[in-house]
Amino acid sequence: MSANAVSTPNVAIVGATGAVGQEFLRVLAERKFPIGKLVPLASARSAGKRVNFQGANYTVEELTDDSFKGIDLALFSAGGGISKQFAPIAAQAGAVVVDNSSAFRMTDGVPLVVPEVNPEAIDGWRLGRRSADGSAGIIANPNCSTIIMLVAVTPLHRAAGVERIVVSTYQAASGAGAAAMLELESQTRQVLAGDPPTCDVFPCQYAFNLFSHNSAIESNGYNTEEMKMVRETHKIWGQSDGEGSAKRVGITATCIRVPVMRAHAESINLTLRNPLDAAEAERLLRNAPGVSVINDNDNNRFPMPLDASGNDDVLVGRIRADISRNGGPGGGLDLFVCGDQLRKGAALNAVQIAEMLI
Amino acid sequence: MSANAVSTPNVAIVGATGAVGQEFLRVLAERKFPIGKLVPLASARSAGKRVNFQGANYTVEELTDDSFKGIDLALFSAGGGISKQFAPIAAQAGAVVVDNSSAFRMTDGVPLVVPEVNPEAIDGWRLGRRSADGSAGIIANPNCSTIIMLVAVTPLHRAAGVERIVVSTYQAASGAGAAAMLELESQTRQVLAGDPPTCDVFPCQYAFNLFSHNSAIESNGYNTEEMKMVRETHKIWGQSDGEGSAKRVGITATCIRVPVMRAHAESINLTLRNPLDAAEAERLLRNAPGVSVINDNDNNRFPMPLDASGNDDVLVGRIRADISRNGGPGGGLDLFVCGDQLRKGAALNAVQIAEMLI
Repeated sequence: MSANAVSTPNVAIVGATGAVGQEFLRVLAERKFPIGKLVPLASARSAGKRVNFQGANYTVEELTDDSFKGIDLALFSAGGGISKQFAPIAAQAGAVVVDNSSAFRMTDGVPLVVPEVNPEAIDGWRLGRRSADGSAGIIANPNCSTIIMLVAVTPLHRAAGVERIVVSTYQAASGAGAAAMLELESQTRQVLAGDPPTCDVFPCQYAFNLFSHNSAIESNGYNTEEMKMVRETHKIWGQSDGEGSAKRVGITATCIRVPVMRAHAESINLTLRNPLDAAEAERLLRNAPGVSVINDNDNNRFPMPLDASGNDDVLVGRIRADISRNGGPGGGLDLFVCGDQLRKGAALNAVQIAEMLI
Repeated sequence: MSANAVSTPNVAIVGATGAVGQEFLRVLAERKFPIGKLVPLASARSAGKRVNFQGANYTVEELTDDSFKGIDLALFSAGGGISKQFAPIAAQAGAVVVDNSSAFRMTDGVPLVVPEVNPEAIDGWRLGRRSADGSAGIIANPNCSTIIMLVAVTPLHRAAGVERIVVSTYQAASGAGAAAMLELESQTRQVLAGDPPTCDVFPCQYAFNLFSHNSAIESNGYNTEEMKMVRETHKIWGQSDGEGSAKRVGITATCIRVPVMRAHAESINLTLRNPLDAAEAERLLRNAPGVSVINDNDNNRFPMPLDASGNDDVLVGRIRADISRNGGPGGGLDLFVCGDQLRKGAALNAVQIAEMLI
């Protein structure tokens, strides 16, 4: 692999016509990511469609075993099944894969990275590398809800030690893809017209309603989305199983889909090992990478999904000392955060990872 | 006061044209509440309008100091200012007031009642009573979010002792009145048409968005809606200040308005004094008054605001043991609940109180 190919990599986008795929293209362009050749890939159904990148149209090619010849970087967001099948093929062909699906997140040896939180997980990784097995390797992008939570919570964890998290999410339609966003819009039109809503993506009405996240319920009663927030946080914070449960942050999550288009919100309650007052927490967050604080008590102005939509930062507000703790040891804090699910929750985080590889 | 007047009371509805006032009329009719004379009251602006009750039209009268002559029961839902001014006048005139505003909820001597939770608070109260001061008295209806939470949580509290609650709400437009519901609808039409949304009731866009509850932020960083959930729960559970903070449940609440029309949802995390597993919690809730359980893990079917809208019961699901506690003493549970803000959260609870007075 030539030095030129590594500094101006050839980039494949797998799932280029999807909501995250489209955001990959926008983020790469906005951030002037150096690109040699751009190869948008998708299923046979979408092959032949055009996508726009920096003002030029590109024809989407069908994803096959031969798609990754000469590719240095492959950004995947086409579902776990596609990633399982094609990410190893892309890595074997010499591409570093940054995979937005859940397929490899918990796999040993696959780094799970939020650049503001655990950049050390990809120390030594670069485009053009080859592992012992000849593969360029796979890096996993965490779940959107996990990323947004950890960008906000990690600075406080570093300062005071987070022992327990109780989080409730308010998740946007974009988390279920472009079809879900369209369904929310079309259902809303139907309901306003007095017509019955058409439910294709979700089994129940989404317009003017909300519901528990539609991922499968595991044997412990939590759904898979909630368990992603638990397991991925342990991995990203270096608290995986082997290290003993006493050291691990305890996390309980309740994941709810709300009729918002593209930014997630999360209500987060933290139990801290050491005292940390709200003013100091706000100061830490104002200085934290990837965070903007909106915490105007006088004007009742706090983060909203509309503020976060199209915004690269995770927005944090409602920063306050938890009054439920009756003066027990350590401390507690409450936060309310919003982050763009398609940007920091998906495409931006993946591109930030890619930037670290050049 | 004659026996006849007490068993077939004359009833005044203060705020008869509002969202809760309209629900008062529907609930009274549905439950066949015995009524002698019905007197719908409202501000001068709404006086002269017609309201429907059991198929007949009634002309709304202007609320004045003389409105309560011969009235046995006055149901108030016209805002705290109106209640402060007119509820004492109604009580002095011989009516028992059931007040849906926050004006008297924390006043000593004013019972704050959820019939399923603390009916004993109005033992001995009846229509036609007179207190030592000659007043028939005021009973306060709790905040909607408090009622919905306590109907679900109290059966578990009785069984295992709730020590701490972390609650995040998903509150519907109806909590801010009929104008807010109309604003959500009209803004949604505007956004779908590509027009800028008109913000009259709230300072920011509500359609396809959500925001922290717009009540004032207190000095501790919590907003007034959140502190209602804290303080009202202490009063209803008989844990007011005098009893010492160690015995009181610790509560932290985050109240969020979501673009849903009329039922609130709440994500509730409980710390329990004694162990209580999820199966036993579900059994207790299935047998609890005013509760319906929707907890179908196999089909991913849990309470939604649309299920709760127009439903008298508080719906409870996502009942599961809290995995964040790492085997500490006692136990923890997570729940997700929905309740109709206008019915159990307001009008139904008030009418249930009135039924206890006959």
